[in-house]
Amino acid sequence: MAGGVVKVYGAAVSPYVATVLVCLEEAGAAYELVPVDMAARENREPHHLARSPFGKIPAFQDGDLTLFESRAISRYVLRKYRDAGAAGDMLGEGGGLEAAAAVDVWLEVQAQQYEPAAAQIVRQCVILPMVGGARDQRVVDEHVGALREVLRAYDARLGGGREYLAGDGATLADLAHVGFTHLLVACTEYAALMEEFANVRAWWERLAARPAVTKVAALMDAFWAGHVSATN
Amino acid sequence: MAGGVVKVYGAAVSPYVATVLVCLEEAGAAYELVPVDMAARENREPHHLARSPFGKIPAFQDGDLTLFESRAISRYVLRKYRDAGAAGDMLGEGGGLEAAAAVDVWLEVQAQQYEPAAAQIVRQCVILPMVGGARDQRVVDEHVGALREVLRAYDARLGGGREYLAGDGATLADLAHVGFTHLLVACTEYAALMEEFANVRAWWERLAARPAVTKVAALMDAFWAGHVSATN
Repeated sequence: MAGGVVKVYGAAVSPYVATVLVCLEEAGAAYELVPVDMAARENREPHHLARSPFGKIPAFQDGDLTLFESRAISRYVLRKYRDAGAAGDMLGEGGGLEAAAAVDVWLEVQAQQYEPAAAQIVRQCVILPMVGGARDQRVVDEHVGALREVLRAYDARLGGGREYLAGDGATLADLAHVGFTHLLVACTEYAALMEEFANVRAWWERLAARPAVTKVAALMDAFWAGHVSATN
Repeated sequence: MAGGVVKVYGAAVSPYVATVLVCLEEAGAAYELVPVDMAARENREPHHLARSPFGKIPAFQDGDLTLFESRAISRYVLRKYRDAGAAGDMLGEGGGLEAAAAVDVWLEVQAQQYEPAAAQIVRQCVILPMVGGARDQRVVDEHVGALREVLRAYDARLGGGREYLAGDGATLADLAHVGFTHLLVACTEYAALMEEFANVRAWWERLAARPAVTKVAALMDAFWAGHVSATN
């Protein structure tokens, strides 16, 4: 029944959209990905602004409910569709106050520390060249340095046998890293950043091997391959 | 019993610290504010980094548990100490999936749309002059324009009798605005931004009149007055 399938508005290549798709895959929820033509500025048209008032992707629809902002959508998806079972709810909420707080802390670290650095590298090395701009290597170098310091702190956090940032299993705090990290590794010359620290390398290998992540990474790659063949 | 009082490490004048203090006040929880001497870079010393690995304030301690990142600490404080009762848990979690999602969405809007603009205005107009720097009016103008567009969207959201961003009552999505908005209104010439849109003006007046907010605003002002008298 089509009416029962949630809709994600956006393109899988967007790291923000990817976060939501990874959560839907982890939850085993059926979804439809509805394209938004960013090049044609469809995201500024009234029908998209009605779903996402700042014109961002992804937007999300579940029946009569519309949501925007990838981390907020992801929390909703995991709360509603994730079968907690033995593997946990991926938000820590079933594990008590401290487990939930650990997810909240490291999801904020992703948003406030990791993403600003990774996003600038991806923007300079991937997005700007794609739209005909020139990258500014000083900006790249600055954010590579910042990201390295963030990863140094992750390496310390992931020491002592801790396999994921916030819990014994993967949580939203880990999953939210997938989009930008996949673009960094697959589309820039800075993939080696993820290999400089042993615990970080093992964490990313573990994360990248999850079936949900493998599937969404393939969607991102397919979009990218289509774009390159269409513009060359 | 002193051991039962939670500790907040930082200065009340920090908008990030203010968010946590407002939540503690709303929850009626006893707390001790422990100064961190940012001017002396105490935040980069090992004892602070052990609590907050990126050297930020606030850090937070509740017994053996230490946390950092203001929004994560705030969620923990409201979950543990807020007596939900009739007035709600301020996270929407007691109200079901949609109520919780509304708080999550508008807390992300605060983090991704409001704060980046407000923080740049406060940095240029308040922080830089305080440490002997000169403000860049082009940066100020750019972010005043951006903040105005954010507030235009808030005005639409707050229409139709909606008194707070995410629910019938105040939630963390509103409270997280207090720190930067108070500095903007009290310490810059851009206070009028909060009066340009009727629904936004009413929302801020409503928020600023809450006893928890009044108390924390006074702590911020006292720090500021002390700093000015100490440096003049």
